[in-house]
Amino acid sequence: MADASLDVVGIGNAIVDVLTHTDDDFLRVHDLAKGSMTLIDGHRAEALYAAMGPSVEVSGGSAGNTMAGIAALGGRGAFIGKVRNDQLGGIFGHDIRAAGVAFETAAATAGPPTARCLIMVTPDAQRTMNTYLGAAVELSADDLDAAAIESALVTYMEGYLWDPPAAKQAFLAAAKLAHGAGRKVALTLSDPFCVERHRDSFLDLVRGHVDVLFANEVEISALYQTDRFDAAMQEVRGHCDIAVLTRSAKGAVVLSGDETHVIDAEPIAKVVDTTGAGDLFAAGFLTGLTGGKSLYDSGRMGAIAAAEVISHLGARPEADLAALVRQRLHEA
Amino acid sequence: MADASLDVVGIGNAIVDVLTHTDDDFLRVHDLAKGSMTLIDGHRAEALYAAMGPSVEVSGGSAGNTMAGIAALGGRGAFIGKVRNDQLGGIFGHDIRAAGVAFETAAATAGPPTARCLIMVTPDAQRTMNTYLGAAVELSADDLDAAAIESALVTYMEGYLWDPPAAKQAFLAAAKLAHGAGRKVALTLSDPFCVERHRDSFLDLVRGHVDVLFANEVEISALYQTDRFDAAMQEVRGHCDIAVLTRSAKGAVVLSGDETHVIDAEPIAKVVDTTGAGDLFAAGFLTGLTGGKSLYDSGRMGAIAAAEVISHLGARPEADLAALVRQRLHEA
Repeated sequence: MADASLDVVGIGNAIVDVLTHTDDDFLRVHDLAKGSMTLIDGHRAEALYAAMGPSVEVSGGSAGNTMAGIAALGGRGAFIGKVRNDQLGGIFGHDIRAAGVAFETAAATAGPPTARCLIMVTPDAQRTMNTYLGAAVELSADDLDAAAIESALVTYMEGYLWDPPAAKQAFLAAAKLAHGAGRKVALTLSDPFCVERHRDSFLDLVRGHVDVLFANEVEISALYQTDRFDAAMQEVRGHCDIAVLTRSAKGAVVLSGDETHVIDAEPIAKVVDTTGAGDLFAAGFLTGLTGGKSLYDSGRMGAIAAAEVISHLGARPEADLAALVRQRLHEA
Repeated sequence: MADASLDVVGIGNAIVDVLTHTDDDFLRVHDLAKGSMTLIDGHRAEALYAAMGPSVEVSGGSAGNTMAGIAALGGRGAFIGKVRNDQLGGIFGHDIRAAGVAFETAAATAGPPTARCLIMVTPDAQRTMNTYLGAAVELSADDLDAAAIESALVTYMEGYLWDPPAAKQAFLAAAKLAHGAGRKVALTLSDPFCVERHRDSFLDLVRGHVDVLFANEVEISALYQTDRFDAAMQEVRGHCDIAVLTRSAKGAVVLSGDETHVIDAEPIAKVVDTTGAGDLFAAGFLTGLTGGKSLYDSGRMGAIAAAEVISHLGARPEADLAALVRQRLHEA
């Protein structure tokens, strides 16, 4: 196995977030399921956008957010994802590169526009996401940067990749490349509805292709069709090398073989917007893991990064995460 | 004079802001004059954007921000300004309409893209703005909505309109339409460098075409080429019906004929980003004035609206301004 020149390659849907503050009434009137990600088509995207209040545009995408977090923590990362050569695509590319992440996937020159996610943030700080995949559906195995994947300690992929059909093949091809080079494959389940859409595939993935699994309480329960977290935890142990199970304010549990670590949530003054909490937990954990930290310390890094991102609007870090970790890692 | 169906029509450059946090070093390396607005061409815009960190996109433009503020305060407003029919133009149109402002100016279907302003926010909360005017240079007298202007109590224009050549003609034509219908014309000087670029024209405007003038301390001093605020104040009195002179933390002075009102700045916990302070002061003042409030109360409304916008990142209001005014107007 050659020396790794990258810590993590992230593969995901390249999305620009369109964020607005709204109330519960708006969700009811427009039939939106609070707290989840719903796939919408172009027409629905236009109608919903027309009904939304003034918005802010920020680059997003689950794996994209994670990669921005890894770079902010000092990790070496690259991102693979598909935009169109339009203004939003330019914004996505600028922001992820400016965050310190390599991004070389060729933009589509025809077809649907760059993906966007219409995000309603309610006063309880929950985010309700509506994703128009646009150009992200064009991502295919041809877009994989084999050299990057083979040189990265971990290839990290989002479950959302199971939604655009060609991306599924890209996912499996990337896992094969990574394992062929003796590297690890990590997956986040992304969202309970995403798990419902693809449960059987995800179970196969988790058992056969994934070394490090990220899931929150609702997602892991959906995967194993149980409503008891403890039951899901017993099921997942042994299905993959490492399982990182996050539980919002209740903290996280990290499982590996017979080991179990319980990580408390990092206290913060005020939760402003939960968008990106899971993405940044993964960023902290993977930066720790690839940096040779213990499972417990890697979990702590996840908790610290997640706490930062939920203290402001938007899903990418604003504070100096590396400094935060230096300051807080050994406090708890 | 027919009944007014609008309180204010705003005319200005239709711009999407691209905001990033940066340090003083970045300004020095890129030769940026802190606190001012500099006009840049497309090449410089590309180079500067490539050097900027991850950014947030929010609709902006001085008069556009003012109109969003007026709508948030319960005023009836329309905006006239030029975008291109591209993604950023779509974002500008969506946001200003979603804020409750009528916006019917036809988007350009060819030529340069929608204007953008690259804004660097330094840790001292100052903003340094770099504007690529793009499609805004296409605004001409043909774009004026005569019916809207004639039906609005006040037509409000930004000094920045003096930068794109055709917009100058639009400005004068709009003033003529407004005055022909017995309405008022208001102007903001926009920026000290803008005043330097167009001093003679601005002096003619202020003396001959403007009823309500907005300027901050630096701008009014630049106009009258003095470094004493008091001297500039004596000069401007009588040049126009009403002069509203803002002084950041030192508050504002409102002059009209022999009347003088001193308005204290509204106290706030923390200044996060001064972008939009002048724009929102104008919004509060004009909403008060067109709503029949006294000059003092109109000034208070300006101070309240300005305080809200500098307490967060971005130049458009986030809080319920009408409620803030109801709560605070008679506190001071």
